[in-house]
Amino acid sequence: MPRRGENELIRRIERTFAGARDARLRLGIGDDAALWRPTAGRELVLTCDWFLEGSHFLRDKHPADAVGWKSLARATSDIAAMGGRPRCFLLSLALPGTHTGAWLDDFLKGLRRAARVLGCTLAGGDTTRREEFLVQITVIGESTGHALQRGGGRAGDLLYVSGRLGEAELGLRELRRGKGFAKPRNAALRKHLYPQPRIELGAWLAEKRLATAAMDVSDGLSTDLPRLCAASGVGAEIVAEDLPAVSHVSSGEGMALALHGGDDYELLFAVRAANARRIPRRFKGLPLTRIGRLTKDRKLVVCRGGSREVLTSGGWDPFRG
Amino acid sequence: MPRRGENELIRRIERTFAGARDARLRLGIGDDAALWRPTAGRELVLTCDWFLEGSHFLRDKHPADAVGWKSLARATSDIAAMGGRPRCFLLSLALPGTHTGAWLDDFLKGLRRAARVLGCTLAGGDTTRREEFLVQITVIGESTGHALQRGGGRAGDLLYVSGRLGEAELGLRELRRGKGFAKPRNAALRKHLYPQPRIELGAWLAEKRLATAAMDVSDGLSTDLPRLCAASGVGAEIVAEDLPAVSHVSSGEGMALALHGGDDYELLFAVRAANARRIPRRFKGLPLTRIGRLTKDRKLVVCRGGSREVLTSGGWDPFRG
Repeated sequence: MPRRGENELIRRIERTFAGARDARLRLGIGDDAALWRPTAGRELVLTCDWFLEGSHFLRDKHPADAVGWKSLARATSDIAAMGGRPRCFLLSLALPGTHTGAWLDDFLKGLRRAARVLGCTLAGGDTTRREEFLVQITVIGESTGHALQRGGGRAGDLLYVSGRLGEAELGLRELRRGKGFAKPRNAALRKHLYPQPRIELGAWLAEKRLATAAMDVSDGLSTDLPRLCAASGVGAEIVAEDLPAVSHVSSGEGMALALHGGDDYELLFAVRAANARRIPRRFKGLPLTRIGRLTKDRKLVVCRGGSREVLTSGGWDPFRG
Repeated sequence: MPRRGENELIRRIERTFAGARDARLRLGIGDDAALWRPTAGRELVLTCDWFLEGSHFLRDKHPADAVGWKSLARATSDIAAMGGRPRCFLLSLALPGTHTGAWLDDFLKGLRRAARVLGCTLAGGDTTRREEFLVQITVIGESTGHALQRGGGRAGDLLYVSGRLGEAELGLRELRRGKGFAKPRNAALRKHLYPQPRIELGAWLAEKRLATAAMDVSDGLSTDLPRLCAASGVGAEIVAEDLPAVSHVSSGEGMALALHGGDDYELLFAVRAANARRIPRRFKGLPLTRIGRLTKDRKLVVCRGGSREVLTSGGWDPFRG
């Protein structure tokens, strides 16, 4: 492989993203830092996310354009979870000499497509060489000041979730079983490879001040719900049969996937019971499902066929053995 | 080593940085994203920087607190190079199970010290487990709107550099020769381990509109000067004897270090000849040295003892073989 200088690599990234400029970006790639004009009166929503070979994607299974798409989509999901709107992002890239050719082109194309769809402009970044392909993305969003937070839930609030839970995990299993690069041949694989952050839903919940607490489900409901409850100082009761699970597997498997599967990037949010009638069954085509409620008792309970079980966290935590 | 959950790790980071809150940080660590209130009428200055084990620091040579200090200092240097002031930062951390104890504590202490000295508040971040210790830092700064850029230099402008060049590279050599963890026993090692971004100088040059072009010297003068010249569409002529080189090595070695040594994080800037009298020899104790001028001829020339040589880039480029 010919080695390419850092300057050339930066120009290549610049070319891929040319024409996608936002007038608020006063200075983009190519200087020491980027210059961005924030909207007057808005708060900044700041988040960042790792997307690392081996930890978050597999070199021989994940198509490069999905790596590009997903690296931005999952970071942007945190902006959606706050009810903000993504504005611009910074890309930190460490790549092996073997990945500077067609692979990098496809990665950048997937990233550019996500940037366009999500309305998020590349502002700058940092590149270096490394044996493994490492991506880190920082997204800067804006909020009207009514940002959604995890800590506002109260006992009695109803719990909702968008979309389907466990679908991306099912897609990951299919991807692992398959040979070579995965193709998005069904909904589960598509969701694993090209997740859709729920930006419009988050912004609507924030602007209408409908959610008392919200977060995105990225590590699995059984790992993320305890975080929302801890921040709100409450417990929760989930009705297993109400979970919007995947339907074409056994009901037990569907439920396990819905409780513990990660990478769905759906929104989990709490709503005052008095506002329940304002939550539609579908928001712009996206199903919204009531799955339980917040409780004064700080336990996390799953109601299943009349019995009650304590919810054990089984989602993804890189620091757990 | 006991494995610690991600939630506990995040609480540990939170505790280390407790009490260092800025009122503009409306929501910090612990939610999906951070909320920050930017100053009305200011532009955002956005930059990010890798700091990776093996590439940028050595596990058995660099003290953990220096890794913490330097990871923030070098990212902040890009804000200084734009004439901005750092406000907050996001920390992305990937760490091995072996580095979650005292090593992590020392890293966080070094990082916290840098955050205090540089006036930069930890707003949020992302953590994951990894075999190697990886740091990525995004810094968000603010500028009054007269940000320094690389592209404004014109032929005839005088070139200046702050501080001493090649000193950090000399420190790196000493560190490599030494056994075990390096101690900052002299200026060169101190500069390599604990670089000082030139925030006050950058802000002054921007506010007084004195620099037509500026950048920080992070990869070495022979690599960075061509970038400033390319952006400005000019060439440059450097007088080797005028370079503020390290004095306690041979003059040839000092000059090579000054031309090609990286990691100094000094500011390189161009000034209209008519404004030269406004540039002091020292700015708040920091020496400022005139090292040459920008030229219409797009070559990069080093004048040395009466002869003229074309400057060959010998600084650090991770993509060069």
